[in-house]
Amino acid sequence: MEPGAFQDDIAEQHCWGCGVLNEHGLQIKSYWSGDEAVCTWQPKAHHMAGPTHVLNGGIIATIIDCHSICTAIAAAHRAEGWTGNADASIWYVTASLQVTYLKPTPIREPVMLRARVKETKGKKTIVTCSLFAKEEECARGEVVAVRVPPAWRQSS
Amino acid sequence: MEPGAFQDDIAEQHCWGCGVLNEHGLQIKSYWSGDEAVCTWQPKAHHMAGPTHVLNGGIIATIIDCHSICTAIAAAHRAEGWTGNADASIWYVTASLQVTYLKPTPIREPVMLRARVKETKGKKTIVTCSLFAKEEECARGEVVAVRVPPAWRQSS
Repeated sequence: MEPGAFQDDIAEQHCWGCGVLNEHGLQIKSYWSGDEAVCTWQPKAHHMAGPTHVLNGGIIATIIDCHSICTAIAAAHRAEGWTGNADASIWYVTASLQVTYLKPTPIREPVMLRARVKETKGKKTIVTCSLFAKEEECARGEVVAVRVPPAWRQSS
Repeated sequence: MEPGAFQDDIAEQHCWGCGVLNEHGLQIKSYWSGDEAVCTWQPKAHHMAGPTHVLNGGIIATIIDCHSICTAIAAAHRAEGWTGNADASIWYVTASLQVTYLKPTPIREPVMLRARVKETKGKKTIVTCSLFAKEEECARGEVVAVRVPPAWRQSS
């Protein structure tokens, strides 16, 4: 799974936040930088909050969620070895998402996400993730990711 | 502000999640039903999670955030009286957002949000919000909304 983007190798690639095949989606890309997972992403003008110069809080929640889940998947692949078989690959879902908005995030510049695995215990991985704009931390999140079997992806 | 949709009367109408003027956005609409604020919304197919039949968790976070913030604004208008002057109207921002994902949310049917003001203390309003699909609760959120002055909307 290294050194390409996490999203190029995961099994389901249609996700609105991070799927490489979702042409209407945000298509974020996440990479390892040592033990940190990083993502740089340029918002579009229509991803605004009420005030048009501020990035929407739901978009911030979405990219923190996707980047963190992909980090949990990538960390598990790192720990267990990547087989190259996307269909059999490891899958995590979000059990909970918490985001603290520290200051308005400007929409015109790229934002950077920095995530780390805080804890891994059985099927559960907790990932912390901060969003920076012009090197200022604007939002901080925590995602509880839970590993599910491949069959989960087909069930309704 | 009653009985129309909250979003028809708030000051900033470009928000990606709930702005009536954002043609690329989700354009949710929220209404009072007694002391509960309700919103019914039909996801589009591209709002999918990894599995294509499941609604994206970031989209869920977005609509919970927007519906809850608009509920805080509408509750303040209810308490203080609505002047009809959108430019002078009350404005809240998200300080924090927490979402627990209870089960996968199907993407094909409309979802329903039900929110209530849990607590109001000074500038802070806490709103709880659940998301239902086919009358099953699939996600549950809590938003801490903070009132800001009109000038906040112009500052960067």
